[in-house]
Amino acid sequence: MAHIDLQNEFPGIRGPMAFRPETAKPLNELAEVLLRSDNTLSRGERELIATYVSALNDCFFCQNVHGGLAQHYLQCDTSLIDAVKNNFTIAGVSDKMKALLAIAASVQKDGKNVTAHQIHTAKNSGATDAEIHDVVLIASAFCMFNRYVDGLATWAPEDKNYYISRAKQRAEEGYAQYDPSK
Amino acid sequence: MAHIDLQNEFPGIRGPMAFRPETAKPLNELAEVLLRSDNTLSRGERELIATYVSALNDCFFCQNVHGGLAQHYLQCDTSLIDAVKNNFTIAGVSDKMKALLAIAASVQKDGKNVTAHQIHTAKNSGATDAEIHDVVLIASAFCMFNRYVDGLATWAPEDKNYYISRAKQRAEEGYAQYDPSK
Repeated sequence: MAHIDLQNEFPGIRGPMAFRPETAKPLNELAEVLLRSDNTLSRGERELIATYVSALNDCFFCQNVHGGLAQHYLQCDTSLIDAVKNNFTIAGVSDKMKALLAIAASVQKDGKNVTAHQIHTAKNSGATDAEIHDVVLIASAFCMFNRYVDGLATWAPEDKNYYISRAKQRAEEGYAQYDPSK
Repeated sequence: MAHIDLQNEFPGIRGPMAFRPETAKPLNELAEVLLRSDNTLSRGERELIATYVSALNDCFFCQNVHGGLAQHYLQCDTSLIDAVKNNFTIAGVSDKMKALLAIAASVQKDGKNVTAHQIHTAKNSGATDAEIHDVVLIASAFCMFNRYVDGLATWAPEDKNYYISRAKQRAEEGYAQYDPSK
């Protein structure tokens, strides 16, 4: 049971978003720009970074929602998502993605943990300044979303297939006009 | 020097906000709703919570910007801000604020650290569900803002009076139409 009466039964972030639409609006607009708008990083790559940070924060709801979306966009199966969570350095992703995931992992702990060496490695693997900026902000934003979801003790469906089955619809609808009741 | 070429010399979050106005917009709209819009928590109380979380995250820029704003709104001197940072349980703030700061401190570590006992204490001291929601989201949001500022290795003026001297103007302008070049 959530720590407060959210006046609805929606799972995860959908509960507090329906409870407080005034804050849901900029939160969803941020997600739309970061995860879906035109970018040299694909939607799948950005959702994968969000998934990885959510796994580091041990946020069950977020890592499954965004893992389902990453899997949908990347047209991969769950094993790639799990491999990234378990050890991205040996997962089947590009060297550039590995360098960006390393930066995201540092941000998850503390922004000051990002090292000049990590930035150098990312640039050497082809990452642009704009991509590095967005990865730092995606990782930072999921440190917010994860804490928001868990800090209010929202509930989450336990069946991982629930999230995978909803991913296609979520991908079609996007975040900007997100209706937490659906 | 920042990790990427931000194409400007603005300090703290102003650098990446000017670099990427598309993400700055929802970030500033979120800050406006959370920290300034009508609320049973005063602007000063909300800025004080933001300051405390930024201090826990050791983000020099954010704790001084928002500490300056808290001091401005609360019409107090720096000693109260420092007392909250040092040990809010014996600082000159209300029992309700102490209960809300305890929740914010848990969120800063991990959302799952918020306990039923902390929520119970907050409610017993008069905190509403809406206030608890907003405190969890303010604390979560500053775990994002702090990481964004530090994860890109932005620079910050060292003189704390710089932040205090700008607080009045920042309070008048608000966040929604924030121009990072000013």
